[in-house]
Order: sequence, then C-alpha cells, then structure tokens
Amino acid sequence: MRIEAVDFFYLAMPEVTTAADGSQDAALVRVAAGGLTGWGECEAAPLPSIAAFVCPMSHGACRPVGAAVLGARLDGPADVAAIAARIAQDSMDLLQAAHTWSGVEMALWDLLGKARQEPVWRLLGHARSEPKLPYASLLFGDTPEATLERGRAARAAGFAAVKFGWGPIGRGAAAADADQFAAAREGVGADARLMIDTGQIFSEDVEAAAARLPALVAARAHWFEEPFAGHAYEAYAALAARSPVGLAGGEAAHNIAMARHLMDYGRVRFIQIDTGRIGGIGPAKAVADLARARGVTFVNHSFTTHLALSASLQPFAGHAEACICEYPAAPSALARAMVRTPLAFDAAGMLRAPEAPGLGVELATDALRPFLVEAEIRVGGRTLYRTPAL
Amino acid sequence: MRIEAVDFFYLAMPEVTTAADGSQDAALVRVAAGGLTGWGECEAAPLPSIAAFVCPMSHGACRPVGAAVLGARLDGPADVAAIAARIAQDSMDLLQAAHTWSGVEMALWDLLGKARQEPVWRLLGHARSEPKLPYASLLFGDTPEATLERGRAARAAGFAAVKFGWGPIGRGAAAADADQFAAAREGVGADARLMIDTGQIFSEDVEAAAARLPALVAARAHWFEEPFAGHAYEAYAALAARSPVGLAGGEAAHNIAMARHLMDYGRVRFIQIDTGRIGGIGPAKAVADLARARGVTFVNHSFTTHLALSASLQPFAGHAEACICEYPAAPSALARAMVRTPLAFDAAGMLRAPEAPGLGVELATDALRPFLVEAEIRVGGRTLYRTPAL
Repeated sequence: MRIEAVDFFYLAMPEVTTAADGSQDAALVRVAAGGLTGWGECEAAPLPSIAAFVCPMSHGACRPVGAAVLGARLDGPADVAAIAARIAQDSMDLLQAAHTWSGVEMALWDLLGKARQEPVWRLLGHARSEPKLPYASLLFGDTPEATLERGRAARAAGFAAVKFGWGPIGRGAAAADADQFAAAREGVGADARLMIDTGQIFSEDVEAAAARLPALVAARAHWFEEPFAGHAYEAYAALAARSPVGLAGGEAAHNIAMARHLMDYGRVRFIQIDTGRIGGIGPAKAVADLARARGVTFVNHSFTTHLALSASLQPFAGHAEACICEYPAAPSALARAMVRTPLAFDAAGMLRAPEAPGLGVELATDALRPFLVEAEIRVGGRTLYRTPAL
Repeated sequence: MRIEAVDFFYLAMPEVTTAADGSQDAALVRVAAGGLTGWGECEAAPLPSIAAFVCPMSHGACRPVGAAVLGARLDGPADVAAIAARIAQDSMDLLQAAHTWSGVEMALWDLLGKARQEPVWRLLGHARSEPKLPYASLLFGDTPEATLERGRAARAAGFAAVKFGWGPIGRGAAAADADQFAAAREGVGADARLMIDTGQIFSEDVEAAAARLPALVAARAHWFEEPFAGHAYEAYAALAARSPVGLAGGEAAHNIAMARHLMDYGRVRFIQIDTGRIGGIGPAKAVADLARARGVTFVNHSFTTHLALSASLQPFAGHAEACICEYPAAPSALARAMVRTPLAFDAAGMLRAPEAPGLGVELATDALRPFLVEAEIRVGGRTLYRTPAL
C-alpha cells in the first residue's frame, strides 16, 4: 500500500500554564493507507511540528518531512525504516524534523499492526508483552507539604512506585530540596519505590547536582533523573562517578546516537526514551536493544495520553528485565480524553503493552473535538495547512 | 534598553531545487531596541523557524523563543547570554528553538555593536580582526568534467583554496568518487589548497568512508569533511584513527556540547561552526575558544549571504592561527542581494571580519523585496505571524 494522507491535529487545554506538564497540548497525527487509519502523537510543540511537515523545501538537505512520507510505500517495518533514513538525509538541516516524524512514525506502526492484525510489539520481534510496574509520574508540589500530600494520594490510588519531578527543585538551596525529597519519601511510604527528576535544572553544574546526593540517598531514591542538559554527557559521567544513586536520562534524545552517547559517555544506568521525540517506535526499539546489551535499564518516557503511553511501551514490551514503566498519573483533561478505553492495570497492579492490533487503543475523536485548535498556515498565496476534520 | 520588536522575513528564490545549495532561501531577522536596528539570519528552514518564535506555549519547558526575547533587557553581551540560558531551560522541548534563536542572537550582537560603535568581534574580546585565507565553497559537478571546470573557474577568479562538496559523492562506487577528487585537484591546480566535503553521505558506515581515503590522499585533500551524520561520534573517531587526512565537521551542531563532543569524542581536526544554527555568535565564540585550547582548527561554516558570512567570521576573528575561512563562491541571486557592499578581499586575497560597527554590513532591503515570500500563521482565531514590512 501507499501512504495516502497524513493529517495533523493541534489540541490544547483552554488554558496552558507554565507548569512542566506536557499534557497541556498535543500534536496528534492521523495517517491513511490501504483503507486503514493509524494514529500517533508528537511529544512536541504542535505548530512548529506541523510547519516542519508542510513547509516549502529550502534545499536538497532541508526538505519538509512530508516530502519523504506522502505517497511512500508501506508494506512492512522495512518501509518505515526506509522513510526514516530518507528523512535523516533529506531533512538533515530541518531541526524540528525528528519531533514531527516521531508522531507520523508511530501512526505508521499503528496502521501496519492493524493491517496485519498484530500488536506493534510483535511486529518489533517481541514474543510477548511482559508486565511492568507502573510508576505514578507526578510533579513536585510548591511546598514539601503539597508534595507529601501528592505522595500519599498516589499511594492511596494503589501505586507502589512514584516519581516526583521539576517544581522548585534546584531553584533554591540544597537544604530546601532535601525537605522536598524527605516529604516525597514520607508521602509514598517506606516501602514504595521513589524516583526523583530534576528536569535539567543544573545544566552542566556537577557540584550543584552533587550537593543533592546526600538527601537523595537519605530518601532512598531509586534514580536521579535529568540532573543536566540533554547533551551534557561529561557532567553526567562526572556525577555518575561519585553518585551512589543511579543516574537516569534520555527523554531529550531526538535520535538513537544521543541515547547511545548518554549511556556510553554519560554512564546513566536508566535510559528513558520518548517515542514521540526520538523518531518514533523503531529508533526506541533500537535503543532498548542497545540498553539491554549494556546492562542499562530501558524506561519509557510518557507523561501525556494513553496513545503515547501505548507507543512508549512497545519498544521494550518483551524485555522482562526492564520491569518498570512511567505512567502519567495526573494528566490533563485533554490527555484523558484521547482514547476510549485507557490501558488498565492487572490484578497485581502491573501494566502491559496491549494485545490488540496496532497500538491497541481506540481514539475518542468525539471527545477530543472540544480541544481542537483551529490553525492555518499560508505561504506565497497557498494554504499549506488548515485544521482537517477530526 | 529593551528589545522592542523582532521581525522575521521569509525570502526565497522563485524556484528552489534539490541541490544542496542552502542559499536558495533565507530566514532574515530584524530586531529593534533603543532606536537601533540589528540584523541576523537563521541558517534554517524559514517557516518552522518562524513558527518556533511565535507558537503558543505548550508548557513551562516548551515555550516559544519569542517569550524569552521580547521585552528582555539588552545592555551588553551578558544580556544576550542570559536570554540564551533562559531559552535553553524554557524551550528545552522545542527542538527548532536553537535554529530560530541563532538568527535573533546574531541580530542582537549587530545591534549591540551599533550601539557601542564597535565591531562585534571586539565585543567578543578579540583585539584585532586577523586575515583569513578564503576558500571558495562549491558543489561538485554532476560529472568530473563539470567539477574540473568549476575548479578552473575558481582558480581563475583568484582563489588559492577551494572546497568541493556533495553532488554525486558517495552515491556510487568509490572509483567514481576518485575520478571526481582527481578532477577537483586538476581543476584547482597543484598548488591550491583543496578540501572535500561529503555531506554526511556515509551516515555511520566507517568502511564506506574509509574506501575513499586513498583517492583523498592522492588528491592531497586538506581535509575530509562530514563523512558521517552529525551525531556519529564513534564513526568519526574510528575513521580518524586510520585517516591520513584530517577530518572536519560540526555544521550540524545546534549547541556548544555537540561541537565539543565532535572534537573530544569524534577526534575531528577542524571544527566547522555555523553561527546561524549553533545558537548564534556567543556559542560559536565559546567553541572557537574550546578549539584553540585543544589544538583543533576552528573554521566558519558559511554558504549563503554576506550577512551570515560576517557573523560567521566574528567568533574567531582574532585567532590568527585559525587562518582559513569558508567563502560562499556561488551563492544564489537572493544571497547576493542581501547586503549593499559585500565583504571584500584585501590585496593579498585575504578576508577579514569587518571593522565597521556591529556586523559591518548594510542590508539592501530594497533589493531583497522581490524575494520576499508572504506568509501568515493563524492559530485559534489569532494571527500569530504575518510578513512584516521590509
């Protein structure tokens, strides 16, 4: 079959705040081929991502993503990889291309799975979908008291693992952060797994990050996530050499090489990949295999919808040893509206990539319509983009 | 003073081809502050770059570039760095941000230089603007004969150094490339400096790149540029270990860390930075200093206008040992129209960053108007961008 159409939808909450909550808007992608529909999602700014799909060509190495996708053959996983290779060469100077392509790639896998009546993880070569312990992914409260309450609520909701991130961490003294870490531990209880995410706040400042280590040890943090900027491999390596807590990172990776470098140069012990940024499910699977070969734990990065969550689980679905997964525990109303039936935990509280064909989720297009943002892009008298019918 | 306005202009040739000629369109930036005007240029796809400046916020770590720029203080270089730091944190999830910001940053330096009546290179701390040997930057012809003719023409035009890039190299057999390299050498003559650029064509394939080494040695290539993808540090290092010809690369760097990694992990001997991509002149100066400390030769990447050329020369203007510079020898009519008085060679054929304030070039706005592409972006009923008056 051929890829007949690719439609982007810009969805957003009525009000978007400066909280580090990536579920406040969404760049939803719908692809059509062979009478079937596939869905994907870019974990990216919607407008620049749409622009990177529809923009006019700048030159041979700066072509729009759409040029490699529309009309391309789609009969199997090799065709998806071929499109990705073409984008790597023909759109090498279009920085946003990886984020744009990620959502399209995801939708192509969804469509391929539906065509073959197989879940995507099986198309990737996984024999089965292994259970993962879901951790509630939450933001720190503005105060330790607020964090403590969020921890208690997550525990009461049944989560045996909880991650707190961002908020005021790193913006004040190390002692203030220590109070937050202690509150997080108190909130989730002594036996829960607790992860801490500082959202790149220390940039490349190893000493500032290291000043947080004693409190992380005291709170028995399972990992210390994103202390530094995504490319700061030297800082990661320097901190890893002196940290009793394993470092985690990788959500910023927009290609396989960045993830590989964070493992090999940065010495992280947990590599966290967002399929909505790294170029989709194929590159994420490649990273899962690289991680396994290195004894690094692959973890999905997922903070938004259950469409993105399902996509994020596919790459390591069959890797039993990678047994923990991120779960968006407080998503926006928009994110909650995305699919008709959310992924559910089993009786033991574990999560699996779905058994249903494709990504195994059904889009709730009617529920999404109220969040649709009308957009239009005109260049040189031509309309390159106008919000399609959802 | 405060940054009062930032205007983007999308300029393009009437016809844009798939040639690897980045001068076929331009994303021009005009900033206004304190009654002065500064100009810059993103070496990037215009539409996605504009979108990344004006798009609505997605969340606290995915804000538009404009949010950090408009209204910000601009009294000196430290203010430019402060805006850059804010973008690194607040736009970390907006991939295109670095390309967008690069043109704005350049314009801010131009404006600061005009305000202080100093060339930008002096604001960067350089004591003087050293002469650089300009190399004509050309694309390979489709045939060795065409390449030979281009080489002869460049030599006849007075260039003592010539670079050939892209074209058919790497798309066929190594023997075909060897014919091209030999033709290039024959065209430029025995005594000219000759550089070869393969435009990432070998991706991460070290053996394929290595197969070109004997012909590069035979043609006495001064460097072997961009054999691999921008992030393929391992491939660079593996080839560097067996190549008698020094490797060059770096134009894809969209932050300082990428350039540093290409030197430290990738072992390049020439680091080539595009101020229109790496985040502007400030980060490029930081890379020039890192290169000097490592004994790596800094080279500007510049294939388009004399506005971009001047900006690309500022970061290493005072580094006498970095004595070669790229010069766009066959730019488009659009690129030629950009400034009123192009940078000129001295009697010895050498090029210098201008002594005039700011970037030292005067925009030819009237000559540019025929290339202006009208564009409009509307989101949620609001016009976020419409081509301003030039």
